[in-house]
Amino acid sequence: MINVSVVGATGYTGAELLRILLNHRHVKVKHVTSESSAGKRIDEVIPSLRKKYDLVLEKPDIARLAKESDVAFFALPHGVGGRAIAEFLRHGKKAVDISADFRLKDVKAYEKWYGVEHPAPDLLKKAVYGLPELWRERIRSAALVANPGCYATAATLALLPLLRHKLVDEDSLIVDAKSGVSGAGKKLSSMYHFSEVTENFQAYAVAHHRHTPEVEQTLSETTGRPTRITFVPHLVPMNRGILAAAYATLKKKTSAAAVRAVFENDYGREKFVRLLAGEEWPQTKNVAHTNYCDINLKVDERTNRVVVLSALDNLVKGASGQAVQNMNLMFGFDEGEAL
Amino acid sequence: MINVSVVGATGYTGAELLRILLNHRHVKVKHVTSESSAGKRIDEVIPSLRKKYDLVLEKPDIARLAKESDVAFFALPHGVGGRAIAEFLRHGKKAVDISADFRLKDVKAYEKWYGVEHPAPDLLKKAVYGLPELWRERIRSAALVANPGCYATAATLALLPLLRHKLVDEDSLIVDAKSGVSGAGKKLSSMYHFSEVTENFQAYAVAHHRHTPEVEQTLSETTGRPTRITFVPHLVPMNRGILAAAYATLKKKTSAAAVRAVFENDYGREKFVRLLAGEEWPQTKNVAHTNYCDINLKVDERTNRVVVLSALDNLVKGASGQAVQNMNLMFGFDEGEAL
Amino acid sequence: MINVSVVGATGYTGAELLRILLNHRHVKVKHVTSESSAGKRIDEVIPSLRKKYDLVLEKPDIARLAKESDVAFFALPHGVGGRAIAEFLRHGKKAVDISADFRLKDVKAYEKWYGVEHPAPDLLKKAVYGLPELWRERIRSAALVANPGCYATAATLALLPLLRHKLVDEDSLIVDAKSGVSGAGKKLSSMYHFSEVTENFQAYAVAHHRHTPEVEQTLSETTGRPTRITFVPHLVPMNRGILAAAYATLKKKTSAAAVRAVFENDYGREKFVRLLAGEEWPQTKNVAHTNYCDINLKVDERTNRVVVLSALDNLVKGASGQAVQNMNLMFGFDEGEAL
Amino acid sequence: MINVSVVGATGYTGAELLRILLNHRHVKVKHVTSESSAGKRIDEVIPSLRKKYDLVLEKPDIARLAKESDVAFFALPHGVGGRAIAEFLRHGKKAVDISADFRLKDVKAYEKWYGVEHPAPDLLKKAVYGLPELWRERIRSAALVANPGCYATAATLALLPLLRHKLVDEDSLIVDAKSGVSGAGKKLSSMYHFSEVTENFQAYAVAHHRHTPEVEQTLSETTGRPTRITFVPHLVPMNRGILAAAYATLKKKTSAAAVRAVFENDYGREKFVRLLAGEEWPQTKNVAHTNYCDINLKVDERTNRVVVLSALDNLVKGASGQAVQNMNLMFGFDEGEAL
Repeated sequence: MINVSVVGATGYTGAELLRILLNHRHVKVKHVTSESSAGKRIDEVIPSLRKKYDLVLEKPDIARLAKESDVAFFALPHGVGGRAIAEFLRHGKKAVDISADFRLKDVKAYEKWYGVEHPAPDLLKKAVYGLPELWRERIRSAALVANPGCYATAATLALLPLLRHKLVDEDSLIVDAKSGVSGAGKKLSSMYHFSEVTENFQAYAVAHHRHTPEVEQTLSETTGRPTRITFVPHLVPMNRGILAAAYATLKKKTSAAAVRAVFENDYGREKFVRLLAGEEWPQTKNVAHTNYCDINLKVDERTNRVVVLSALDNLVKGASGQAVQNMNLMFGFDEGEAL
Repeated sequence: MINVSVVGATGYTGAELLRILLNHRHVKVKHVTSESSAGKRIDEVIPSLRKKYDLVLEKPDIARLAKESDVAFFALPHGVGGRAIAEFLRHGKKAVDISADFRLKDVKAYEKWYGVEHPAPDLLKKAVYGLPELWRERIRSAALVANPGCYATAATLALLPLLRHKLVDEDSLIVDAKSGVSGAGKKLSSMYHFSEVTENFQAYAVAHHRHTPEVEQTLSETTGRPTRITFVPHLVPMNRGILAAAYATLKKKTSAAAVRAVFENDYGREKFVRLLAGEEWPQTKNVAHTNYCDINLKVDERTNRVVVLSALDNLVKGASGQAVQNMNLMFGFDEGEAL
Repeated sequence: MINVSVVGATGYTGAELLRILLNHRHVKVKHVTSESSAGKRIDEVIPSLRKKYDLVLEKPDIARLAKESDVAFFALPHGVGGRAIAEFLRHGKKAVDISADFRLKDVKAYEKWYGVEHPAPDLLKKAVYGLPELWRERIRSAALVANPGCYATAATLALLPLLRHKLVDEDSLIVDAKSGVSGAGKKLSSMYHFSEVTENFQAYAVAHHRHTPEVEQTLSETTGRPTRITFVPHLVPMNRGILAAAYATLKKKTSAAAVRAVFENDYGREKFVRLLAGEEWPQTKNVAHTNYCDINLKVDERTNRVVVLSALDNLVKGASGQAVQNMNLMFGFDEGEAL
Repeated sequence: MINVSVVGATGYTGAELLRILLNHRHVKVKHVTSESSAGKRIDEVIPSLRKKYDLVLEKPDIARLAKESDVAFFALPHGVGGRAIAEFLRHGKKAVDISADFRLKDVKAYEKWYGVEHPAPDLLKKAVYGLPELWRERIRSAALVANPGCYATAATLALLPLLRHKLVDEDSLIVDAKSGVSGAGKKLSSMYHFSEVTENFQAYAVAHHRHTPEVEQTLSETTGRPTRITFVPHLVPMNRGILAAAYATLKKKTSAAAVRAVFENDYGREKFVRLLAGEEWPQTKNVAHTNYCDINLKVDERTNRVVVLSALDNLVKGASGQAVQNMNLMFGFDEGEAL
């Protein structure tokens, strides 16, 4: 049994994390913090948790959290939690950061894409990018895990086998991604006002979304050369779920079976990647409230391209579920515990 | 004042057509037909039309329709209306076919993609592809207009200027399109059952959707060589609207302003194409219930690609509105009458 | 041809009003005003109006508006527009107020339910409650029309015939109403954040919604004694539409046919009330984007109650459509012009 | 550890049951049956269960099921499963019937409301109505539990305390209920076609829904006299959730606190009923995917009525969750196990 705290517990990822941790047999949630709602019972802010948790939200007191927790999840906006994480780690405890702060290894790239000064550049060497399908062993021994972005998880899992096995032209990568609205969090904006979203579909941040460099960093590590993607995200009138369509040009004529073999090789033993067959395409509905990423692909022989489709729940495999998967690895629990 | 009949009036495109024609100052709707609902008042089948039309659905009697109508809209499934259209035209009247039967010039391609024998191959020479932004003059003098598909309209309008002005590599074209559910019509299927669609997003017919050859035919005519696209459609949990994202690689480094100039040249005087500026991306909500196609584009300098986004209402500019636009051209009315 | 101005043009009711007025043959929209967006083109704020209007939003200058307009629609929050309306009327022009300010004849009731001082109590005598099905003649000669609330229109039209013809116990009235989210306007609130609304259904303002006294005022005028209702509104995860279920106990055993006869008597000749038959229940979809109110009823013989169901589009018959209907009456146009 | 089988496993309630049983520590799912999909793997029919169950759907062989199961859930349409349940029970095993067959004690009432002959009237004496908050002790020793209807659970829990404590007039009961679409199951119908449901709201089965007599049976047992309700269900454009508004006239002036005290007395110790306070109204979102029923109430002093609002997930507390709650009671497990 370990003690776990959640810093920034009242957003959508915090609520989802608490929902998942309810089912975890080796975890006790010790502290939940919130700057703006400190003093309230957790279920006053997240009514769905009524009768499930008997916890009061606290102002974050990192020293005390560190003393009484084995691990903490930081679910804060980017640029905010870095210093607190640094302090928490100094007490010898482990952390999973759900924000974007420790995903990019390059401080300059971080500061360019996020427009803020990096809060704790010294920690970047220490941080492990928490995509278990790629860095499982590193995660096991990490003190700090940078939990991947939701879009980044979907896009990276779709493209990795193609690049790792050198099937496609590295200059041909396009990811057209679609997300439900919960990915944008609780912050009010006319863009997420119900009347503006329902019966509507639109692209946003066209070719300049912040998850782009994160995907490119992983792909470049895989190819061994700077690898870029055109990335276009869209807003779907639904709450949860991401579907990404990744397009790449095959280096040479390759059968669908050969492309599929590569995915089966990479993901066949993965607990949380499900490779679909034939014309059964990933649907966000089938992964909702689960930690699965469903993947299928098509070779378009007419144009010599491969299309890979991947679906996940942005709040689970795209955030809190993957965070728990990472914690399970860090503490030697069954990787799928509570998931 | 002309007399208009609608053959196959009870589907979503038929209902939309009747809604639009209500506002047309030069049209009287004479006959509405339905195989399955003949004998019922139109508003028994389409309750939203109650108190708007006083018409009874009839079995289609083409000779009588031709006698009493100046033009007819055929809103039937593909493969069904061809012979009726042929007979109707023999009476010297004009027709707009909303089905796919007369879009593809190549009978073999039609039979391969649609899986049925062509009902009236002799008429193909006569049929004009009803995209007014491309073939306005031909449409004015046409007896038979093949109304474009909804996806095809969105994809073609997005790509045409790029190819016409030779800005992009003809082998680099990808269209990732997303549609509301009304595009699938009224036919029941578990795929369109509310509980399966809401809070869900999925691709379908990946790289083999029937609108693909229609887009390719137009693009090939433009480039003067066989031009192919990878086309992937998706189902959005909403009723109306299509958003298409078209991706193409620039032949050489080209500024956003130069690409935009080409679109302004081609569409600046078009009544029903609206070119958006800056970071204002097309939204299906803004074109819903209208005949507009909203377009904007982005040059992704990092990857040397251009992304064009286009949005339209699949039942209006993607079907019945464009059909009325075509009729307006065929009869010399103001092109925007009733639209 | 009359000149029309819209004060507060950028909310959902303003936008809907402008959409409707586009189709009006006797109206020219002269001025559109907005405190917060003055100086912008109308389509910068309401993109769906692009290419439809060539108007710039202005700060409201009532003297100038009055000079250049025959009538103005005031689509402002309650408590805000009263003084401007008074000034506008002093210039001898006509006004339709879409806010709640002139609906309640009793200043004290207004101040109690709305929590603000009444902005222009002197005008209350002058104001006519703009429900054409009830006060058509008064509206024709009114200088100031108080456009009814959306819920109030649905509830009042459902209950009026029952009370007018003394079929039901005046102490037994319950209205359980359900509305789409656009009724709440554009103001941001976590209650209308997409992720909080989709896949959710809830009641609000239980038994203390502000439209309650408005309905009661009309019903009391009809019965000649103080008549109260229990009114419970709900939020439906959709954009447009209201469905109200009104419950009342029959004074004595009455056949369904007899109850229906009373509705046919009252509404049979009404252009914008459609009485449905048998088991065809009103659906918000069938009245969306129209000025109709669809009504049907059921006598529950087991409990001696009558249930009346009414549906309308909260932005049309519940706001801007009814406002145009009122203007048509005030200026002697066809009552259904543009609707 | 007990062996459990699910007869009719492929509908929405079957799928939900399997999802819940995954988390049950004392249960092994032994057989899953389906007439139409026998021979397929369960996840071919319910893709969300991929990698979770390794079961093949079988034709129901009741003798074998009975031999190898301690309990079976029957999730079949009404009128279908009765004989199979009778046979299953003859082997001395226990059953939870999720259909309506054993809810009504009166065979004539069943046959009138459901329009079919009762499949096993002899079992009616044996069947216990599975509302744990009412019949917990009877359920513990039952061999056959008739799992309540979804609307009936919401309506009955809302009204019971008022009647049990004689606070309200038994002739004044009205329930206006609203349900998501999953309550209608997987059967295709134009009424549940996505394009017909989204952006729509409507009533159906007005004052003659089949859950009416089920609620009345329970209320009549409570009051000791025939007690009737007017019941009107509505369809909400969402997948899951029921919200019921129950209206009743207070026998005499009663404070909100006094009414609340009665609910606290009856439900204060209930694990799966959550009584909300103040103006916090039940929302279907907060009970989605849980076995909770959230309740709050309001005394409308102006009209001397009480309004009780109750919310639950129709597939969980309204079906499969309550079924597991009942099984837990029947086998002496913790009542909340897996829930």
